[in-house]
Amino acid sequence: MRRLSPIDVAFLRLERRHQPLHVGALALFTPPPGSPPDFAAQLAERLNQSQIARPPFDRRPLSRLGMLYWEDDPHFDLAHHFVHMALPKPGRIRELLAMVSRVHSAHLDRAYPLWRVYLIEGLEDGRIATYMKIHHSVVDGVSGIRLLMKSMADDAAASAAMPPTWEVGSGQRPTPVLAKALTGLEKLKANAASIPSVMQQLRETLRDARARRPDVVTSLRAPRSILNQRITASRRFAAQSYSTERIKAVGKALDATTNDVVLAMCAGALRRYLSDLRALPDKPLIAGVPVSLHRDREQAQPGNEIAFMLVNLATHLEDPLQRFHAIKASVDYSKARFACMSQSELLAYSVAMLAPGVAKLAGGWENMPVNVVISHVPGPRQPMYWQGCQLDGLYPVSLLLDGLALNITLVSRHDRVDFGLIACRRTLPSVQRLLDHLQEALEELEAAVA
Amino acid sequence: MRRLSPIDVAFLRLERRHQPLHVGALALFTPPPGSPPDFAAQLAERLNQSQIARPPFDRRPLSRLGMLYWEDDPHFDLAHHFVHMALPKPGRIRELLAMVSRVHSAHLDRAYPLWRVYLIEGLEDGRIATYMKIHHSVVDGVSGIRLLMKSMADDAAASAAMPPTWEVGSGQRPTPVLAKALTGLEKLKANAASIPSVMQQLRETLRDARARRPDVVTSLRAPRSILNQRITASRRFAAQSYSTERIKAVGKALDATTNDVVLAMCAGALRRYLSDLRALPDKPLIAGVPVSLHRDREQAQPGNEIAFMLVNLATHLEDPLQRFHAIKASVDYSKARFACMSQSELLAYSVAMLAPGVAKLAGGWENMPVNVVISHVPGPRQPMYWQGCQLDGLYPVSLLLDGLALNITLVSRHDRVDFGLIACRRTLPSVQRLLDHLQEALEELEAAVA
Repeated sequence: MRRLSPIDVAFLRLERRHQPLHVGALALFTPPPGSPPDFAAQLAERLNQSQIARPPFDRRPLSRLGMLYWEDDPHFDLAHHFVHMALPKPGRIRELLAMVSRVHSAHLDRAYPLWRVYLIEGLEDGRIATYMKIHHSVVDGVSGIRLLMKSMADDAAASAAMPPTWEVGSGQRPTPVLAKALTGLEKLKANAASIPSVMQQLRETLRDARARRPDVVTSLRAPRSILNQRITASRRFAAQSYSTERIKAVGKALDATTNDVVLAMCAGALRRYLSDLRALPDKPLIAGVPVSLHRDREQAQPGNEIAFMLVNLATHLEDPLQRFHAIKASVDYSKARFACMSQSELLAYSVAMLAPGVAKLAGGWENMPVNVVISHVPGPRQPMYWQGCQLDGLYPVSLLLDGLALNITLVSRHDRVDFGLIACRRTLPSVQRLLDHLQEALEELEAAVA
Repeated sequence: MRRLSPIDVAFLRLERRHQPLHVGALALFTPPPGSPPDFAAQLAERLNQSQIARPPFDRRPLSRLGMLYWEDDPHFDLAHHFVHMALPKPGRIRELLAMVSRVHSAHLDRAYPLWRVYLIEGLEDGRIATYMKIHHSVVDGVSGIRLLMKSMADDAAASAAMPPTWEVGSGQRPTPVLAKALTGLEKLKANAASIPSVMQQLRETLRDARARRPDVVTSLRAPRSILNQRITASRRFAAQSYSTERIKAVGKALDATTNDVVLAMCAGALRRYLSDLRALPDKPLIAGVPVSLHRDREQAQPGNEIAFMLVNLATHLEDPLQRFHAIKASVDYSKARFACMSQSELLAYSVAMLAPGVAKLAGGWENMPVNVVISHVPGPRQPMYWQGCQLDGLYPVSLLLDGLALNITLVSRHDRVDFGLIACRRTLPSVQRLLDHLQEALEELEAAVA
């Protein structure tokens, strides 16, 4: 038994009936060539043989005298955690997304370790899917994706011999991003010498903001929008993959990174979506973007995601190229600032930049410091396999908070960038339209650089 | 907009993360002879054409200045309420019950009218199923079953022409049993003349109890048992049908009612289940049984279920016939008392009998005034059809409360008695074993009267 960290406690205590705080991921797989029609049923039976769970899949929260502890579940009950499901006919991706939307809306039972894995069959094209949900007090989204990757291999045969995800575990309990952030703050406190350097960066940022440089974003600038409302308990999940090659080509033509291009795709899609609803704010939307400074390396290093970038999505600009350059300028400005700072300084800078916006919240859910969170998680750089099946898509299913009714999280892999959009079903109508708008935004950029 | 009654408010306010307060029903149907393989998909498509919901399916709770109101949902969203699902292979009843257990564990979203209907295909024998859940603030279990029956007909062709359940509605909002009970109390207060008669009945009951007549049950007599624990958020649902003819034959041989026999079946099954777990209390289990005094009529009259009978299940007796007679004596004693009383007097008597046991609760969840609630709902007396399909089984899925980790509700139809058992998955192991034990208990009684 081990006491929960303050951050883990917060994720349990801040959970509400309409605001479950677990994260998830939908993965699509192609079974091995020549698989029998009952491949999924056989796989389910094999996975059901599993008897054990390794950290962090083995522990449940225990409340004692008002304190929260992790304790090993004395009666591991796989039938509670592993669920075999089937899509109704016709088994389109539409039916799969509807199912994930519903299942993601339901809370995890705190009497058990806080996770569930669903194996889903019945897709019309013969593929299978898994959806994993796990509480944010156990892992954050990035660690959750890494946890999934740990049970895959870059070789089909090797992957078929691997135990199920919950038996592989993490080796150790992953440290959530925010826990790292707090550690960073502690370090900063311990190393008071760095404070003047952070203050210097902040002073320069504020000076640039006062000079109304458009690439400087402060958290006071996020306009009111329909994205920023109190949420309900129902979710709509939308997911689609886009060609990494095409995205990289646009980036190359514009001397920009993949990240710049996907942010511009999100900006174009949001502009179209809100315009169609006659709800596009006059001022540009501001995105909160957790940043890994080692994004483009083979594998992101743990502990690098703690910086939180405020990005001007320039949704007020009609021309896609002008919009792209405004977004890139805003990203580059933050990067330049970030480059001069250590990790702990970065954190302090991020907190200071967000703080005035957080104070605005007293005015209601519509006064958020950011309009939307867009998170870009580095995925595998080569074909991956799970239980002998090839990974075709890995779509994050994130969480929502009151005031943040949409979250866009994407995983970039070698051949595809997989977007997972989660929204409040009741407050944001037909969010699935954003999938088409993302494609259109990419095409607009391609046309502009042609 | 209309304010919620105090009872409806209570069902919303008393809901907890681990204690959702909706009730449900699982119905099994045989499609019409010669139906195409995609019958369920076609049916789902037809039901999906529906545009409207009638009371009580049209309203959602609205909180304003701390008060709760019902308001018509301004944007009825059928895709939220009607869900088409499929069982994974092999599509046994076991997979169906596991699915219902999971779906019944999840809360309804209060931003929408508080109900959902699932159409489930994929049973290996070609049958289809529906599972409906509806919040107890909208209807109680008995009214919920009646609501379902309203969208069925005793003629296959006529039923195929009927609109979906939510379009049929109730004509009016059904009054929950407890609301009727409160009305009864009000009437009693208004008619103070009846109080002496209730007091007289109570005096006689207490005199009999002091004389240690075994057929007299007071709420202080329920022993501690594993059935009476704090519950978790996970459920296990078990359901099975038993022959009405065989149950009636046992009743006839013992000069008893169907209700006496099903209570004895429950007693026998519980004795076996608890013995196997080495958890059978030395003292007999006490069941709380909501009673309709018009149980054996074609159709129960509304307003008749308010009496709450305490029944000695005589689980300490090994001999099935002795046990049966003890149970029947306990039921007959309550009936004799009930017969002298008006409806409002009955209510006052029931409350007075429960009150000392409720006071015991201060000692913890294991000190319940009753060990288990067994509810017997009169069902249709002839074959019924829904959307052209014949009704094969109608299994109630009730709610659990802290301290009451098992609920047995049954629907008696012309040819079958359908038992629905809902239990806390974590605190009561393998409740599905009770299904076999119910059958064994019936066989024991048959052998005893042979």
